[in-house]
Amino acid sequence: MPYRDLLETFPSPTDTPFVIEHTAEEFTSVCPVTGHPDFGTITLRYQPRPAAQGGVCVELKSLKLYFQSFRDEGAFYETVTNVIRDDLARAISPEWLEVVTDWKGRGGIRSRITARHGSR
Amino acid sequence: MPYRDLLETFPSPTDTPFVIEHTAEEFTSVCPVTGHPDFGTITLRYQPRPAAQGGVCVELKSLKLYFQSFRDEGAFYETVTNVIRDDLARAISPEWLEVVTDWKGRGGIRSRITARHGSR
Amino acid sequence: MPYRDLLETFPSPTDTPFVIEHTAEEFTSVCPVTGHPDFGTITLRYQPRPAAQGGVCVELKSLKLYFQSFRDEGAFYETVTNVIRDDLARAISPEWLEVVTDWKGRGGIRSRITARHGSR
Amino acid sequence: MPYRDLLETFPSPTDTPFVIEHTAEEFTSVCPVTGHPDFGTITLRYQPRPAAQGGVCVELKSLKLYFQSFRDEGAFYETVTNVIRDDLARAISPEWLEVVTDWKGRGGIRSRITARHGSR
Amino acid sequence: MPYRDLLETFPSPTDTPFVIEHTAEEFTSVCPVTGHPDFGTITLRYQPRPAAQGGVCVELKSLKLYFQSFRDEGAFYETVTNVIRDDLARAISPEWLEVVTDWKGRGGIRSRITARHGSR
Amino acid sequence: MPYRDLLETFPSPTDTPFVIEHTAEEFTSVCPVTGHPDFGTITLRYQPRPAAQGGVCVELKSLKLYFQSFRDEGAFYETVTNVIRDDLARAISPEWLEVVTDWKGRGGIRSRITARHGSR
Amino acid sequence: MPYRDLLETFPSPTDTPFVIEHTAEEFTSVCPVTGHPDFGTITLRYQPRPAAQGGVCVELKSLKLYFQSFRDEGAFYETVTNVIRDDLARAISPEWLEVVTDWKGRGGIRSRITARHGSR
Amino acid sequence: MPYRDLLETFPSPTDTPFVIEHTAEEFTSVCPVTGHPDFGTITLRYQPRPAAQGGVCVELKSLKLYFQSFRDEGAFYETVTNVIRDDLARAISPEWLEVVTDWKGRGGIRSRITARHGSR
Amino acid sequence: MPYRDLLETFPSPTDTPFVIEHTAEEFTSVCPVTGHPDFGTITLRYQPRPAAQGGVCVELKSLKLYFQSFRDEGAFYETVTNVIRDDLARAISPEWLEVVTDWKGRGGIRSRITARHGSR
Amino acid sequence: MPYRDLLETFPSPTDTPFVIEHTAEEFTSVCPVTGHPDFGTITLRYQPRPAAQGGVCVELKSLKLYFQSFRDEGAFYETVTNVIRDDLARAISPEWLEVVTDWKGRGGIRSRITARHGSR
Repeated sequence: MPYRDLLETFPSPTDTPFVIEHTAEEFTSVCPVTGHPDFGTITLRYQPRPAAQGGVCVELKSLKLYFQSFRDEGAFYETVTNVIRDDLARAISPEWLEVVTDWKGRGGIRSRITARHGSR
Repeated sequence: MPYRDLLETFPSPTDTPFVIEHTAEEFTSVCPVTGHPDFGTITLRYQPRPAAQGGVCVELKSLKLYFQSFRDEGAFYETVTNVIRDDLARAISPEWLEVVTDWKGRGGIRSRITARHGSR
Repeated sequence: MPYRDLLETFPSPTDTPFVIEHTAEEFTSVCPVTGHPDFGTITLRYQPRPAAQGGVCVELKSLKLYFQSFRDEGAFYETVTNVIRDDLARAISPEWLEVVTDWKGRGGIRSRITARHGSR
Repeated sequence: MPYRDLLETFPSPTDTPFVIEHTAEEFTSVCPVTGHPDFGTITLRYQPRPAAQGGVCVELKSLKLYFQSFRDEGAFYETVTNVIRDDLARAISPEWLEVVTDWKGRGGIRSRITARHGSR
Repeated sequence: MPYRDLLETFPSPTDTPFVIEHTAEEFTSVCPVTGHPDFGTITLRYQPRPAAQGGVCVELKSLKLYFQSFRDEGAFYETVTNVIRDDLARAISPEWLEVVTDWKGRGGIRSRITARHGSR
Repeated sequence: MPYRDLLETFPSPTDTPFVIEHTAEEFTSVCPVTGHPDFGTITLRYQPRPAAQGGVCVELKSLKLYFQSFRDEGAFYETVTNVIRDDLARAISPEWLEVVTDWKGRGGIRSRITARHGSR
Repeated sequence: MPYRDLLETFPSPTDTPFVIEHTAEEFTSVCPVTGHPDFGTITLRYQPRPAAQGGVCVELKSLKLYFQSFRDEGAFYETVTNVIRDDLARAISPEWLEVVTDWKGRGGIRSRITARHGSR
Repeated sequence: MPYRDLLETFPSPTDTPFVIEHTAEEFTSVCPVTGHPDFGTITLRYQPRPAAQGGVCVELKSLKLYFQSFRDEGAFYETVTNVIRDDLARAISPEWLEVVTDWKGRGGIRSRITARHGSR
Repeated sequence: MPYRDLLETFPSPTDTPFVIEHTAEEFTSVCPVTGHPDFGTITLRYQPRPAAQGGVCVELKSLKLYFQSFRDEGAFYETVTNVIRDDLARAISPEWLEVVTDWKGRGGIRSRITARHGSR
Repeated sequence: MPYRDLLETFPSPTDTPFVIEHTAEEFTSVCPVTGHPDFGTITLRYQPRPAAQGGVCVELKSLKLYFQSFRDEGAFYETVTNVIRDDLARAISPEWLEVVTDWKGRGGIRSRITARHGSR
């Protein structure tokens, strides 16, 4: 899964701590068992390291393309969430990072998965 | 009540702690006193044990069937909630687990029961 | 399907035209193909005939029991809606009657069926 | 039922047609069968006759007291609605009048009754 | 009541029919009986006459000052609504005009008054 | 005030701590000063003592009748809230208990009173 | 585009006119210009011909698969809407049919396309 | 500013700690710079001292009149909020008290001011 | 005002009548009197002429650029609305067209202007 | 970027700690890469220093003009947020300050940036 190579970054604009949150409401992947499409919302929340320590932010358009690259990928909710957490943590080495995925209902059950990297 | 046998699991995809939440909005059981149907929403929230320690997640379709098995069962709100807590705790041995049941109004009173296993 | 015998009526309180609407938000039946439960909301709307012409209204508790009697019945959305329309039309012989059924999502598709008797 | 004597009026301020709507969200009466309280919202909508023809409006505080006088009265939804329609029509002789009553759920079924006097 | 002199106009920008709606959510006047303040929302909706016929629109800031001039005025809901209808009709001579006033609850009853000038 | 005798209980189904919340949206009492009716929502939240220690839950229908018994009672918001807190605490001797009352607006002011027994 | 072959039907259950509405909230196709995914909601509304005239309804699961078949298709909003209208009209020959597509925002603009077959 | 003399109190009904919240949605004062009216919502939240220590509650009608007395007063948001905090603290000597004022938009900016007395 | 040159079109995909609606929620222009920015939502709704008669649709990206070209333009609400109506009518010669502009509040008053071309 | 000179202050009205929050819903700047406009909501929250220590509040109209000065400025979300934080911190030297910016969606992703000065 080479998606992570799509992620680009730019230097954090400050040494002062601050928090960035991006919410993608149009995420879709494929259920690995049934082959039916899954639809969800992905929220990424993180605190970049200070600029003086080489802290970076994820570039918004590259994040969009990264999310789009899951479109034909078959993966469970739990796996998608952990893969995104790991890929972003590797790309931006933040102070901390949080990924929340909200999945539309399947058979009357909707799901939310939350994964963290570092401590807030 | 053999419902718990319906629950199936799959290995947790990671050793890193993360949280899973499933919300079933179409739950129904039967009032043991009046025989009238009860309708509610069940929210299950838990943190699986790390994969390296044999941690597992509950499989979504089996969870749906487990919830459906209450359809003809006569039980009080409080009992339903505690039974679900105990059955899930046994099935997935999570770090911690929380069950919240929200019941539609009866005689102008709606109810919510919350049960936990382990400490968050 | 003997459900219709559950319906009881009482005399309309007036000769002046008026409209009655009952909305049952806790309806459930069973999908005849998969055996999975269906959940929906049933809205019944009608104008009784004038009292002087023997007009009657449906009694509310009997309507509730009638709706509950579908709980174990396997039937398509379209059939359920037309059966309710026909049973009520027979029970209360109204000036006109309208049944709207709203069904929760299945595979990401939610449905609404509307059937009428007489002209509003 | 002497409630109607509570209703007071004042002269319409104009000959030009206009429409008045009052919505009382805190209405309660008693179910004549079970003795349990019913709760609902009453909406009164009417067009007074022109001032030159002796048109009058219902005084707001007297309307409140009139609605409160149903507090201990046992009556079906359908009867309450028709009584209010008739009492108001008698008190203000409007061009037309409409009463809509919305009743909170009983056994999972909520109801709306609509009665009219004259044609809009 | 000299309020109407506050209203200013500007020429309609076109001969083609179009509709203008202004909604003032911060209207207050005084109850002439109790002296307590009334609070409401005023919606003004109208179609100006064509520019070629001298059609005009009401200037927005002057409308705001006109509405504010009711702050210390004691008047019933019905009177306020009809006064605004008449003042605006005189100021802009529109093809048609509609005034809707929505008043916050008093003793559990909220009210809406609708007055029209000309036919839509 | 003999209302508290209406309250009935049943044994807690478990020794494991859990929380019960009942919300009655159709509460009404009478203002002791003006005699006008008050309308509100009552939320009761508590943790029963463990079953092994004789812990009990309040029976839902008896709670409904207890709340209905305030219908003709004249009492201030603050008093109603404290009486309910004390009556329930006596009836079920819970680990802790919380009563929140939300009252519809009077003269443009709505109120919420919160009373607790024991520490959460 | 062979999608239409996925559509299956079943006989209408009645000769009495009634209306069916299916809303698919998880529709996605691809922008033919940029290659970016589009997301939208499709609402299909129709009246089947009477059973005695061979009237049929669209089978729900086949409709889901038909909608999913657009996932990799590049087409403008306007084209998607007209194709769905034409495919469904051919498959079920209804009395009338309506397709409404609601598309999530692109560059700050969201769109809705409405196409009809026959007259309601 | 003699408003504070309008505030009246009554003895707290209990020695047990409890919290009272009053929300006035129809507050208006005047901008001291422009003379234009300001509109807002005032929330007062406090814990009275125990009855045995002479704890008192603010009487609801007197609170309404106190709030109404700001109608012609010119004062900044920040000043209004602090004056209310100080006046109430003096009138009822509570364990603690909190005042939150929410002001409708001016020039596209809406504001909220929060002031506290004592520690919660 | 050369904005209209930004508008581009593409051929309508069908001869069958259908309706297109685009809603731009991020519109801004400048008040010609105060120089302060105005913010609003623009809704464009139209029926293209049949393809066989040379009917065209407006291209979405060109519509976005057209709307953005108002960013530094000083114009009253009424003028902006009529200019958009005229520019679009010229660009696509539709069967009919409707423009609705919703403007955020100014001094507590929000506005909506509606202009039409042809008859729906 | 000389915007910060637009900010004006007035002395805090009290020595007692209190919190001020201003929310500007009509903020716009320009994307430095694409040149397209960005739209967002800016929330400023702070606690002024005590009056006795020379504490000041930001004047509301000057804050509006300061926010408007970003209209033609090209800057990333992250930069805008940090610039506002720094400019306000310099202008009012508060006990603490928080800036939250909420940006409307771009390519299906909406963003929120949070920056703080001092500790709450």
